[in-house]
Amino acid sequence: MAYVAPALIDRLRPLDRRLLGIEPDPEDPAALSFEVVPHLCRTDGRFYGGAALAAALAASEAATGRVALWSCTQLVGAAALDERIRVDVSVVASGRSVDQVQVTATTGGRLVFSAVGATATPQPGGIEAEGQTMPSVASPEESRPWGGPARLDPAGARAAAFGTPPAVGHHLVSEHREAHIVDASADRPGHMALWARLTGEYAGTTMTPAVLGFLADMVPIAVCRAGGVEGAGTSLDNSLRLGEAVDTEWVLLELDAEQAVGGYGHGHVRLWSRDGRLLGTGTQSCRLFSFDDFLRRSQAGSATR
Amino acid sequence: MAYVAPALIDRLRPLDRRLLGIEPDPEDPAALSFEVVPHLCRTDGRFYGGAALAAALAASEAATGRVALWSCTQLVGAAALDERIRVDVSVVASGRSVDQVQVTATTGGRLVFSAVGATATPQPGGIEAEGQTMPSVASPEESRPWGGPARLDPAGARAAAFGTPPAVGHHLVSEHREAHIVDASADRPGHMALWARLTGEYAGTTMTPAVLGFLADMVPIAVCRAGGVEGAGTSLDNSLRLGEAVDTEWVLLELDAEQAVGGYGHGHVRLWSRDGRLLGTGTQSCRLFSFDDFLRRSQAGSATR
Repeated sequence: MAYVAPALIDRLRPLDRRLLGIEPDPEDPAALSFEVVPHLCRTDGRFYGGAALAAALAASEAATGRVALWSCTQLVGAAALDERIRVDVSVVASGRSVDQVQVTATTGGRLVFSAVGATATPQPGGIEAEGQTMPSVASPEESRPWGGPARLDPAGARAAAFGTPPAVGHHLVSEHREAHIVDASADRPGHMALWARLTGEYAGTTMTPAVLGFLADMVPIAVCRAGGVEGAGTSLDNSLRLGEAVDTEWVLLELDAEQAVGGYGHGHVRLWSRDGRLLGTGTQSCRLFSFDDFLRRSQAGSATR
Repeated sequence: MAYVAPALIDRLRPLDRRLLGIEPDPEDPAALSFEVVPHLCRTDGRFYGGAALAAALAASEAATGRVALWSCTQLVGAAALDERIRVDVSVVASGRSVDQVQVTATTGGRLVFSAVGATATPQPGGIEAEGQTMPSVASPEESRPWGGPARLDPAGARAAAFGTPPAVGHHLVSEHREAHIVDASADRPGHMALWARLTGEYAGTTMTPAVLGFLADMVPIAVCRAGGVEGAGTSLDNSLRLGEAVDTEWVLLELDAEQAVGGYGHGHVRLWSRDGRLLGTGTQSCRLFSFDDFLRRSQAGSATR
């Protein structure tokens, strides 16, 4: 078990460190930790899965000094606003150009998320491939804000239940706009596209694997849409495989459903730069719920999971 | 940490137990273990990644009594023919209809693979969705055997280097045939389709999540093809998300590349029943190599990874 040495805090990418608020853990400076601040929450005040993936990617890069290649981040336990999450990285195999890592994140000794993945150094002369093509979509300037569950009745019961805008959530530091897909096909009923970017003090064109993970956690929406339902999901994991490193302000999230059976489903997301280069591909499994069902349970005072 | 109790050996699906040869571990009957027999190897005599995923799925189902929903199996260390691999399952979270699991597989105390995943019980009235459509392909009867690296020059140097047929490998218990894709698109240069089934004493129409994982480990071939190279890869992980449970003899592996940068790449595979139902979707990251390069290194006596 090779844990992150104190100096590794300095190997975090500056934007990742700022966005996630990662510091040496107060109780063990050999580990990293961060606090669940409002922009690292979902709109219901619980820790956001996209932030878990982002933290796993950032910590893996810091521990190995290589670029994130992939991470599968399993979301195990909830964490609430103001809780501090400790992140430990173990390098379980180390090769000439790739390191395999496992990440464990806990709060008060309780498991919040676990990740498996790798970081790698691209090899000169190594095989290069582009397997996919960016869909033809409307520009960010032509696209409307994606408003989440409250957007369907901005003055109604849903808006009241979810808050308009919600007091906490990644929308405090990011923006998503739904883009019309020009060549949409009836064969892919969950196929949808969102332009995403960081906003406010995090705005800019710097793009990191962690930021891509942070922005891309939207797959359950597409899976619900393929099922003919407006809804979202509780993610069981949040996974990302990284491709070209390209700086870009806007990232196109090309979402697609795989399938859902009995309320559990899977989907994927391709992340494109504005000029059509593939930045990575994410996948997720999740427990799905309709916004109507979520609202009914909220009003009845019961939990959603 | 909840480990598999001895009685759980009886909760393995019979086909999985037979195919993988899983037994209570001789040194600790509370754990499961299996031996690396020839059909659980790659053609180079090392433990096969598809068998690792299969074992993780089978053990997760046995430990929880639920159906596998997804597994991401990280391939960490090599294991050789005749080595015994011990498999421990920890249930890290347990809900009303879903269990989250972590699997650790070791030989002689050395880590071979780790998996994160979940098993679930589909919920009556839960959201159902189908996001994808099976491609139009030639039938298994119309398709030719996929011969692996030796197929391009069956009497030449490659065949000699790889063996024709190789003495060990999953081809001892399975068969793959490349199917022509009727509506192939130049936009997806790695898009290819293989019909796969178990053969010999394992032949039949029973299909389990573990068998799907065992058959589907072909993604690197498609990633290489998208890069214009005949080759394969050393998988870093082998992941599968399960959909409909359908019994079928033949499974269509619809392979597709995401991308590769500097010799490291990603791709996915959709698994279809013969009648067009989506059985699951797999993803992988891998280090890629061309068969020519593999041959050159074999002749020079160096390792391939």
